[in-house]
Amino acid sequence: MPEATMNDDNEFGIRDGEIAVELPAQFDASLYFIGRIRTPWKRRDDCPKNARESEAICTLEVDPRWAQALTGVETCSHLVVLYWMNRSRRDLVLQVPRTYGTGRGTFALRSPARPNPIAMSVVKLVGVAGTRLSVVGLDCLDDTPLIDIKPYFASTDAFAEAVVGWHQARKA
Amino acid sequence: MPEATMNDDNEFGIRDGEIAVELPAQFDASLYFIGRIRTPWKRRDDCPKNARESEAICTLEVDPRWAQALTGVETCSHLVVLYWMNRSRRDLVLQVPRTYGTGRGTFALRSPARPNPIAMSVVKLVGVAGTRLSVVGLDCLDDTPLIDIKPYFASTDAFAEAVVGWHQARKA
Repeated sequence: MPEATMNDDNEFGIRDGEIAVELPAQFDASLYFIGRIRTPWKRRDDCPKNARESEAICTLEVDPRWAQALTGVETCSHLVVLYWMNRSRRDLVLQVPRTYGTGRGTFALRSPARPNPIAMSVVKLVGVAGTRLSVVGLDCLDDTPLIDIKPYFASTDAFAEAVVGWHQARKA
Repeated sequence: MPEATMNDDNEFGIRDGEIAVELPAQFDASLYFIGRIRTPWKRRDDCPKNARESEAICTLEVDPRWAQALTGVETCSHLVVLYWMNRSRRDLVLQVPRTYGTGRGTFALRSPARPNPIAMSVVKLVGVAGTRLSVVGLDCLDDTPLIDIKPYFASTDAFAEAVVGWHQARKA
């Protein structure tokens, strides 16, 4: 279980101004890893800061058990990818990201540290070979566990007008 | 554990043309429910077919434990919401949705039946009162377990040009 080693990872310690809470006594549901994500990045410092910074092609390696579940995926231009950030601590409620320096709530951030360390990325599908999907738009570590793949529907998923106020204020 | 009762739910049986696989022998990671989603829909048949069909205001009720994690969320116009579709079977790889009638792979569908029944919806945030967020854009059952809330960034999450080929072909 990834959780067993999570809080031993000093790379993800608490910074000044950050706040952790006691985690619930037990879990409520469980996940299967459905495959792995292959990326060029072996260390956290190597990862792009933002998925749009990189045109690197990454690979979703889906476990052969789920091969038939990919039927029709090749007709999608973009996919929603959910993956498990298995090296993150789960008890932070207030975080001080290195690049911002101001405390923000976990649910106002895309930080990997969150109660359920599930990342959501929208990727462009550039190739399918059996159970391997080549995609552009990820920024995660190599060997990251894959949780889900979904078709991206512009009609319900694209909101070009969306604003993250704290982020805009920072740039102004 | 929701998994315990999942496969007893006859509402989610197998249709002609659907294919199930044997699930892995064990789980790989675990989740905490961070709250509940309140919606007007008590039965599956009452839910809108598509989140854009309804302007109903739903409520994300976040557990008080995570209250500080909401700091800054009020500055976001749109949020990514992850939730747990706890009544769905997890072993289907090929599905025949009632409304389409053609077999599609699970990863080419937004069906709740998937190895990890996590739904992703983009919602418009219309109000915050303590740990209760009022949102528009959900189509799930009342009392659905909440897993995560993230800020929606148009710069990485909005792809207006995205196409789901099998879906377009169906309409043509």
